[in-house]
Amino acid sequence: MSVLRYDVLGIGNAIVDVLARAEDDFLVKQGMPKGGMALIDQARAEAIYDAMGPAVEVSGGSAANTIVGVASLGGRGAFIGKVRDDEFGRTFVHDIRAAGIAFDTPPASAGPATARCYVLVTPDGERTMNTFLGAAQDLHPRDIDPDAIAAAQITYLEGYLWDPPHAKEAFLKAAKIAHGTGRRVALTLSDAFCVDRYRDEFLGLIRNGTIDIVFANERELHSLYQTADFDTAVNAARVDAKLMVVTRSEKGSLVITREQNDAVRAEPIDRVVDATGAGDLFAAGFLVGLARGADHRNCARLGALAAAEVIQHMGARPETSLKALAEASGFVL
Amino acid sequence: MSVLRYDVLGIGNAIVDVLARAEDDFLVKQGMPKGGMALIDQARAEAIYDAMGPAVEVSGGSAANTIVGVASLGGRGAFIGKVRDDEFGRTFVHDIRAAGIAFDTPPASAGPATARCYVLVTPDGERTMNTFLGAAQDLHPRDIDPDAIAAAQITYLEGYLWDPPHAKEAFLKAAKIAHGTGRRVALTLSDAFCVDRYRDEFLGLIRNGTIDIVFANERELHSLYQTADFDTAVNAARVDAKLMVVTRSEKGSLVITREQNDAVRAEPIDRVVDATGAGDLFAAGFLVGLARGADHRNCARLGALAAAEVIQHMGARPETSLKALAEASGFVL
Repeated sequence: MSVLRYDVLGIGNAIVDVLARAEDDFLVKQGMPKGGMALIDQARAEAIYDAMGPAVEVSGGSAANTIVGVASLGGRGAFIGKVRDDEFGRTFVHDIRAAGIAFDTPPASAGPATARCYVLVTPDGERTMNTFLGAAQDLHPRDIDPDAIAAAQITYLEGYLWDPPHAKEAFLKAAKIAHGTGRRVALTLSDAFCVDRYRDEFLGLIRNGTIDIVFANERELHSLYQTADFDTAVNAARVDAKLMVVTRSEKGSLVITREQNDAVRAEPIDRVVDATGAGDLFAAGFLVGLARGADHRNCARLGALAAAEVIQHMGARPETSLKALAEASGFVL
Repeated sequence: MSVLRYDVLGIGNAIVDVLARAEDDFLVKQGMPKGGMALIDQARAEAIYDAMGPAVEVSGGSAANTIVGVASLGGRGAFIGKVRDDEFGRTFVHDIRAAGIAFDTPPASAGPATARCYVLVTPDGERTMNTFLGAAQDLHPRDIDPDAIAAAQITYLEGYLWDPPHAKEAFLKAAKIAHGTGRRVALTLSDAFCVDRYRDEFLGLIRNGTIDIVFANERELHSLYQTADFDTAVNAARVDAKLMVVTRSEKGSLVITREQNDAVRAEPIDRVVDATGAGDLFAAGFLVGLARGADHRNCARLGALAAAEVIQHMGARPETSLKALAEASGFVL
């Protein structure tokens, strides 16, 4: 078995977030389902950008945010994802490397621009996302470095990878390498609409053991099992998944295994400024806990702590050292 | 006399800010004078970017920030400045137009990339800036639209315009048009090092009446008159300038005219998160007050209020409606 160099390796769409505040009216007028993530083409991307207010650009991407969270917690992280060799691509690469993360996926030198996600943050802190996948469309199985996967305790994949044409092959290649070298594979269901697009495939991966750990929020869980009843969905998850963690916003999280369910409270905060990245950072905390051998309750507490930091400011990446925050709460990392 | 379409028209370097947190050590290691603005070439820009931490990109530029502040206060603003037709250029143009500002300067289709400023924010909230001027170098007198200048009650210029080769000619052309149509001209001294580079020229412009209103912070005022004594500098300013406003951080501001000096207190705040834009936003508040006929004390109070908002978050542009903030403090705008 090769040497462990990483706690968590993430594979996901490499995206720059373009964040702006918006009123609920704006979403209605633009026909955007609040709280969701819609895939858009270039023409729609330009139309949305023209219509939206002044913005801030921050590197994003769901799995990438998670890995940055892992690094901020003192974990060793690596990331695989595709950018174009343009200004936004250079921004993405700088930010992920500057966070201390191993990132070696070669940028595309032709084709569409680096992916961007127009994130509209409403006054209640909820975010509504519109993603132009651009160069992230070009993630390919050849971008998966077997040595890196084998060197990571957990390989973490985002459900959004089902959207680009070859990324799902990259995903499956990575999962196979991980299991072949005795590592674990985690998946986030990403978004209720994404689950709706790929429900049967996600359920298949969970049931056939390709996925060891599943992250979902309530909406995604309900979408996965096509039920509005939480307990029904939880009971179904318990049969299907080895380990599933369901995040429930201010209600905390539920860790579901075949043996038991553990409910863990959310970290109390004053006000949600921008919910972008809440799920991503929860996963970061949970995975670092898992990699360090913490029990499930403490993994979830670490997740709650990381999520609480990121929703109290604009943007989906931590602004302070999560390791310092966690240590102040009594964690030894 | 042509119709007034704008309260304030700004002319300045069109820049995208690349903001990151940094420890004081980093500044020392990089040889950066804390709190200052250094001009850098492309090689140095790349070296700084490689060395600095994860960043956030926000449209910036001193005079541009001021005009965005003017618009946020409910004023009518216009801006003239040069970007390249690249991703950062499109970001700059989007943000300034989305803020409701008239902006029609054609982007450069060749030459260096859109200007960027690497802003290092230390734990005390102080910012240290390194600017790669790029396409802003190409601002030219032909970019000055005489009709726009004639339609603005105040034309506001940044001292930084003395750095690019032709921008100072653009500056002088604009000042001449403004005075020829009975308008006023304001100048910010921008930065103590900038004053050091162009001291005699700035003093000449102030003394010969090219400038009606001067904005300076204490360091810039001391640099202008090459004295460490505040009162000596103030007495000199009183002789030279028709109207000078000196900002003094938490000590408030001093409005200097030939008749009298008015000291106005700063707006109390909890903590400086990022001082970037404090002077720019003070100028915005003062100029909107002036354009609306407020007395100097109320102009300075409005400036203090706008500055207080911007230093309580990362980035140099307001995150909330300054008009709403000002109205909550009893201003009628």
